[in-house]
Amino acid sequence: MGAFFGAVSRRDVVLDVFFGVDYHSHLGTRRAGMVSCLPEGGFKKEIHSIENTPFRTRFDHDLPGFRGTCAMGCISDMDPQPLLVRSHLGVYAISVVGNITNFDALVDELTSAGAQFMALSSGNVNMCELVAALVNSQGNLLDGIRYAQEKIEGSLTLLIMCEDGHLVAARDRMGRLPVLVGKDDDGYCVSFESFAYGKLGYADEHELGPGEIVRIGPDGYEVLAKPCDRMRVCAFLWVYYGYPNSNYEGVNVEVMRYRNGRIMARREEVEGTLPEVDYVAGVPDSGLPHGLGFAMQTGQTFARPFVKYTPTWPRSFMPTNQAIRNRVAKMKQIPVPELIDGKRLLLVDDSIVRGTQLRETVDFLYNTGAREVHMRSACPPIMYGCKYLSFSRSNSDYELIARRKIKELEPDGGEDHIAEYADDTTERGRCLLRSICEEMGFDSLRYQSLDGLLEAIGLDRDRVCTYCWDGRE
Amino acid sequence: MGAFFGAVSRRDVVLDVFFGVDYHSHLGTRRAGMVSCLPEGGFKKEIHSIENTPFRTRFDHDLPGFRGTCAMGCISDMDPQPLLVRSHLGVYAISVVGNITNFDALVDELTSAGAQFMALSSGNVNMCELVAALVNSQGNLLDGIRYAQEKIEGSLTLLIMCEDGHLVAARDRMGRLPVLVGKDDDGYCVSFESFAYGKLGYADEHELGPGEIVRIGPDGYEVLAKPCDRMRVCAFLWVYYGYPNSNYEGVNVEVMRYRNGRIMARREEVEGTLPEVDYVAGVPDSGLPHGLGFAMQTGQTFARPFVKYTPTWPRSFMPTNQAIRNRVAKMKQIPVPELIDGKRLLLVDDSIVRGTQLRETVDFLYNTGAREVHMRSACPPIMYGCKYLSFSRSNSDYELIARRKIKELEPDGGEDHIAEYADDTTERGRCLLRSICEEMGFDSLRYQSLDGLLEAIGLDRDRVCTYCWDGRE
Amino acid sequence: MGAFFGAVSRRDVVLDVFFGVDYHSHLGTRRAGMVSCLPEGGFKKEIHSIENTPFRTRFDHDLPGFRGTCAMGCISDMDPQPLLVRSHLGVYAISVVGNITNFDALVDELTSAGAQFMALSSGNVNMCELVAALVNSQGNLLDGIRYAQEKIEGSLTLLIMCEDGHLVAARDRMGRLPVLVGKDDDGYCVSFESFAYGKLGYADEHELGPGEIVRIGPDGYEVLAKPCDRMRVCAFLWVYYGYPNSNYEGVNVEVMRYRNGRIMARREEVEGTLPEVDYVAGVPDSGLPHGLGFAMQTGQTFARPFVKYTPTWPRSFMPTNQAIRNRVAKMKQIPVPELIDGKRLLLVDDSIVRGTQLRETVDFLYNTGAREVHMRSACPPIMYGCKYLSFSRSNSDYELIARRKIKELEPDGGEDHIAEYADDTTERGRCLLRSICEEMGFDSLRYQSLDGLLEAIGLDRDRVCTYCWDGRE
Amino acid sequence: MGAFFGAVSRRDVVLDVFFGVDYHSHLGTRRAGMVSCLPEGGFKKEIHSIENTPFRTRFDHDLPGFRGTCAMGCISDMDPQPLLVRSHLGVYAISVVGNITNFDALVDELTSAGAQFMALSSGNVNMCELVAALVNSQGNLLDGIRYAQEKIEGSLTLLIMCEDGHLVAARDRMGRLPVLVGKDDDGYCVSFESFAYGKLGYADEHELGPGEIVRIGPDGYEVLAKPCDRMRVCAFLWVYYGYPNSNYEGVNVEVMRYRNGRIMARREEVEGTLPEVDYVAGVPDSGLPHGLGFAMQTGQTFARPFVKYTPTWPRSFMPTNQAIRNRVAKMKQIPVPELIDGKRLLLVDDSIVRGTQLRETVDFLYNTGAREVHMRSACPPIMYGCKYLSFSRSNSDYELIARRKIKELEPDGGEDHIAEYADDTTERGRCLLRSICEEMGFDSLRYQSLDGLLEAIGLDRDRVCTYCWDGRE
Repeated sequence: MGAFFGAVSRRDVVLDVFFGVDYHSHLGTRRAGMVSCLPEGGFKKEIHSIENTPFRTRFDHDLPGFRGTCAMGCISDMDPQPLLVRSHLGVYAISVVGNITNFDALVDELTSAGAQFMALSSGNVNMCELVAALVNSQGNLLDGIRYAQEKIEGSLTLLIMCEDGHLVAARDRMGRLPVLVGKDDDGYCVSFESFAYGKLGYADEHELGPGEIVRIGPDGYEVLAKPCDRMRVCAFLWVYYGYPNSNYEGVNVEVMRYRNGRIMARREEVEGTLPEVDYVAGVPDSGLPHGLGFAMQTGQTFARPFVKYTPTWPRSFMPTNQAIRNRVAKMKQIPVPELIDGKRLLLVDDSIVRGTQLRETVDFLYNTGAREVHMRSACPPIMYGCKYLSFSRSNSDYELIARRKIKELEPDGGEDHIAEYADDTTERGRCLLRSICEEMGFDSLRYQSLDGLLEAIGLDRDRVCTYCWDGRE
Repeated sequence: MGAFFGAVSRRDVVLDVFFGVDYHSHLGTRRAGMVSCLPEGGFKKEIHSIENTPFRTRFDHDLPGFRGTCAMGCISDMDPQPLLVRSHLGVYAISVVGNITNFDALVDELTSAGAQFMALSSGNVNMCELVAALVNSQGNLLDGIRYAQEKIEGSLTLLIMCEDGHLVAARDRMGRLPVLVGKDDDGYCVSFESFAYGKLGYADEHELGPGEIVRIGPDGYEVLAKPCDRMRVCAFLWVYYGYPNSNYEGVNVEVMRYRNGRIMARREEVEGTLPEVDYVAGVPDSGLPHGLGFAMQTGQTFARPFVKYTPTWPRSFMPTNQAIRNRVAKMKQIPVPELIDGKRLLLVDDSIVRGTQLRETVDFLYNTGAREVHMRSACPPIMYGCKYLSFSRSNSDYELIARRKIKELEPDGGEDHIAEYADDTTERGRCLLRSICEEMGFDSLRYQSLDGLLEAIGLDRDRVCTYCWDGRE
Repeated sequence: MGAFFGAVSRRDVVLDVFFGVDYHSHLGTRRAGMVSCLPEGGFKKEIHSIENTPFRTRFDHDLPGFRGTCAMGCISDMDPQPLLVRSHLGVYAISVVGNITNFDALVDELTSAGAQFMALSSGNVNMCELVAALVNSQGNLLDGIRYAQEKIEGSLTLLIMCEDGHLVAARDRMGRLPVLVGKDDDGYCVSFESFAYGKLGYADEHELGPGEIVRIGPDGYEVLAKPCDRMRVCAFLWVYYGYPNSNYEGVNVEVMRYRNGRIMARREEVEGTLPEVDYVAGVPDSGLPHGLGFAMQTGQTFARPFVKYTPTWPRSFMPTNQAIRNRVAKMKQIPVPELIDGKRLLLVDDSIVRGTQLRETVDFLYNTGAREVHMRSACPPIMYGCKYLSFSRSNSDYELIARRKIKELEPDGGEDHIAEYADDTTERGRCLLRSICEEMGFDSLRYQSLDGLLEAIGLDRDRVCTYCWDGRE
Repeated sequence: MGAFFGAVSRRDVVLDVFFGVDYHSHLGTRRAGMVSCLPEGGFKKEIHSIENTPFRTRFDHDLPGFRGTCAMGCISDMDPQPLLVRSHLGVYAISVVGNITNFDALVDELTSAGAQFMALSSGNVNMCELVAALVNSQGNLLDGIRYAQEKIEGSLTLLIMCEDGHLVAARDRMGRLPVLVGKDDDGYCVSFESFAYGKLGYADEHELGPGEIVRIGPDGYEVLAKPCDRMRVCAFLWVYYGYPNSNYEGVNVEVMRYRNGRIMARREEVEGTLPEVDYVAGVPDSGLPHGLGFAMQTGQTFARPFVKYTPTWPRSFMPTNQAIRNRVAKMKQIPVPELIDGKRLLLVDDSIVRGTQLRETVDFLYNTGAREVHMRSACPPIMYGCKYLSFSRSNSDYELIARRKIKELEPDGGEDHIAEYADDTTERGRCLLRSICEEMGFDSLRYQSLDGLLEAIGLDRDRVCTYCWDGRE
């Protein structure tokens, strides 16, 4: 996904930005960058790969070169960021997060009109440079950002650092991702994750609304463009992406997950589908609090039958050697055989996308001697591939296990009944459950309902993006 | 602490050793090394600092150079390891784990007798080289290892790889640390942590007894020296050091911790000291399962009011810049304010040593709005600094909070009543609790009893080292 | 200065380009880059600093990633190169050499018209990107290059690699720098230095004329734009820049220098100004062959009273520590006291620009006991700072010792007689010689005459740039 | 070969040692090391490979860590150096240069007696550690060094730095290599090359005699062991190894080479064998001054028909890729075709060992159009492989072209007439010349005579090692 963090202050903010960016490391695995406005003019900028080396280790040795009261950085799953751009709007640094579905069309439109881009090794264009070109096509920064927001299909959240030491942040038009402003005695910061600045001593100051654009200096922030009314914040921020400590739209991730698990369990208690098990468990990492909530509700014993090995496996390590790469994938989850062998387990995962990884987990549990494996998904069946944040990057919706099963069950016309399939109170819904259960080898399977999920989030249904589940844009 | 992993097989074992060593990364933070016997003769050896870069990242690029059917590696908190040694016993690699309390005396004895050592930058001698010198002073490897075991005060566990492609492993004379042998279709491995080889496809084959020495080849292992009767395995392996998935002496760490938490809670239920709280929580990482067991027993709600940030904080990162170093210490534990503010918390930690870090945690909880903080230690009060594994590295026993308090409470003669102070059913014991409670700002405090702890481990009292608590050697 | 090398062939050319670029290392000290068209599409590109690490060492580890039948690279004293550009002309790599004196005006003109540039850390624009923007402003590559040649004041030599695997090379409009095409059995290459490809097995195929533009493929080259009539090739290519083995316009550098030294000596023989000395010597490196020619003509003994230390001092090493940086400057030239102490020396240097470095050399010779130091410059007094290739990078012409001296000698109106001062047959010329001799502490001083220099080069006077000496544009 | 440099002073000497060691880079290609006594106690030590990266670049980043008024470093063609050793003699750093022909016997002797060594990856022992073991076997440092000098066959020159901040230097028993002491206002240094300290501002203070041992502190040096009478300094120091600026036994290298060339030429003038040629040239690097002396004597024209490319080819670059490695060997010497094509050349090389490389050079000259190639060797035919400094590392004397030819010419008994073959005034001598001439394709060939060479060096015949030429030990 990616994320950014920036700060502007009356004091040097380099360490704040260093730690602030580091605290977003869970949101990306490929690249990271930092840039500061140097007191003597000009910028200091570094971009590194973080595929095999953590952000902190990578940037530690660069720190002496960074100085300044205004700085920003980012974690990126895509192209090198942030970029420095020079145009009639001056010189500025820019970092963007999101997904541009009309990318090629925009590049063609701009090059046909005479624009040039620096090309990536692939020949492609850096997403940041494209967004900058849209911004620079207008008479001033505000109009430029608005123009970019309009032209871009998908989603666009951005942070700009001007050479005069101000930050300009713009949240996606539909507010799909969060942007928050924090404040301390000396200045302000901009962040994706609230805990990142909380831990650095900043207090909550302002959460941008959808499409809102703010200009931030050491003495305050100014709203350049007011938020729009419509919002569609990504529900997966709570279900999967977010760090337990994060709050989005005022709702804490860990607390939401406990509540979500409880709602799931309560419904099963009511409907009498709760299986008798030895342990309730959550699939690490994000499934754990969903599972804990579930167990707290039912009073069943919670345990950790497998534990993620973290000391040197912090992220998607990509060894240079192919033989190793093949083995690495299976090395993170480590079983506690005593908690599996001969036991009946109820497992809560955050979601079931393609089902391939879960299949391996379940096989592994049975091989370790599990007597029963009951599966629970903390969100409804995923029916549509995400086109806003590329959460479920897939070439086709048929890679999604639910959609593939519907196609199998009802090759002709099954797609006209997706909503029904997603509802396990209908015959089609129960049929889908049984079919997945069988393929995956679960003893039982249930999904959280969309209503239950929205209740757990606690926001108005219209303000949350539910596209993955119901196709609502 | 440190640890080692080795393998010898009919196939190339480099990747096994690479992953096997990596799985011991939680046991050390300073250095790591790998060495293999090359098929064409000679060795390939690398040693790196792992202070700021995970083992896997550090050694990934060296892998192409490692080949061979016999290899070993180690994680070390001390000197560079493994070393290659040449003597009348031939050429071999050696790695050692433990604590030699008569180090300087041994070096002086040997140099006076004409021995030379390579010096470290400090002028000191590498612990491996000292042990090798003791081994080499005898006529053969077995006599040499036995001689080293006898001469060394403290503890000594070692792994040797001979140039002919055999491994020789020796467990500490008192079995303070574990050494296990695993087996697969092609060969054997030696490990500290059982899960490390389990995950690599090896099955449990043999756990060395105290002082046992085995010689391992691709076709089997041979006991060179039988185990002694006396054993004093370190109880902290379960309480604190061990990974949840590990088994020592057949007892799983995670399961022991659940049981330990339940025993603590059960006693409080019986004695009626259980406070009414909103949440039971464990101090990450090792306190969590103790806390989970506690909550499962009482039926109270378990939650995670603070979460460790892991993505790029896997280990004791030591930034080059001092300003950063000062900040890093406080950056790992991140609060979930919604689970703290206005709440009554019962916190389970693995142990209370000096109390300084815990003091910061408690202050932080109160500052975040906690209404009550009840503290529980998963082991008894620590009364004696460890001299076998330097668990509680301290210059004086008075750095231990319990001992410091006793000194305050009863300056003259308090030390004659340590056993009484450790027992909270006595007046002195209750007095110590109150006194620590007050200094630390807890609303209540209880320690696991030694009996309770031993019940949770489940081994015979005589086979477990309880020196930290009762001074028994 | 900078330089480039490219090759396109029916076979992989990566090693050719690797060595071909390396052979241009004497032309630049800051950065180097390589890019190849990958067989599977896309590019592989790397740019590194070469300030402290030789090109070969820096790029050695990147080599496995470079593949392709079309590749190019460059040495740059300026911005990172080569760049990849995407525009309506497609995707291409571009490298440029030269000096753009109307740089800022061009950037302003383009940004005002809506163009955007990636900014360097300084906020400035990469020279390559500016040139690309000019090229891209036209309908096709040929028109674009011509347009860039017209718009740019100073000089511009460029190499472009198109994504379809062709190279396009354009020599500066006035042919100030060389561009040569070589040919072997499988394809073609483009180079600054003829020896670079000679050593790689390519034969001379074509030397581009002024302003000539060629398109080169594996099967031949096509002239896109014919050479202009006017040429002003830089005389310093022979006097100072060129490697001894290089030929420009068919004239070899080493041979020209021998001839130049002989002409200087012959004139002194005729005019009877030849001093009696123990040794004739050349100031390393480029002064040596001038001095050798001089000694061969007069029959005086040639010797090397100081020698450059090369093993680890290949280039302008810039240590990170300031204390070291200050010492490094004086560490390269090492004396042979036996050849200095008590001796009379005639020293030939390639040129005398500011005189500061020469002053140190002469002081050093006297301190080592030299009895006499006679100085000879292999070119006339430098009167004008170079505006085409920034040879004598200076803020003011008064940094040039000859101009400074004229100002001192004749504060009012001396500048109206520069030509006379440059001619040592006039009273003003002799006066300038005496004045410099005195300040620098030479026992005698003579400059090569412009006629003598042109005779040594052997090209028509109109085809050589003599701006530095006579201000002729 | 290898070399060392150390300094001890009242000021910090780290930069002196950094530059001093760097100035010995021409004497080795594999490894380099530096160590300093830290003011706070202990040492700072670094050892790096310098195969692909120059010493300065490699150690630049380590410099901040080195501090102290006593430091040393080395260039090594063998094992990692310097080592730190701890024994009953205390802790010291040691660096050695030389060739130990009874290496294995010494290792066996010591290990049998109970010694242990750290093993290299090959299983072998580091030469420094072996020497240290010999030193440590005695009661004090002086006795130890003397014992090592006696036990070792071959040659041994060493530098030791004691933890109390003194240096102890010992020249080889036969003085085969030089050791010089320099002095400045603050302290002293020890060096192989006189120019190294000269350039650093130290003046000549003392050149150690054969076997001499000195102890050096900031305030002076003390002779621990007086020099022996017998000396056999290596003649190749002047002929080939030494840097032009170096003086050994008071004789400058560059001046010796001029003189040597003149003696060779004078003899040819007398004997009437001087061919008529267009150019006299020296094979770079060490052949050049021999050739210059030759040309100065005869009055023939000196030129450089091929030039070594140095900017990024400073030393024996060993690319990681095999394809490159094969090409690199031929890339250094670059021709100036104008000075070869159609020309008659007389080439002076420092020596002719196996003849393989020279054969390539000559072929290359003929291929470039040379009309005649006359070869001159600046020393007599090499008849015996060096056993003191491994100059001509060969498995058999028959790899030497002269010996191979003798074997061919006179298979039985030729070896009884080696002295005669080496003398070109005899029939056998002339026969050898003709035979080599023919195989190598020279138009004529002559070797310097041993008398001529000794005259050029100017030392008493008994004080110079002439083993390579006449087998005299």
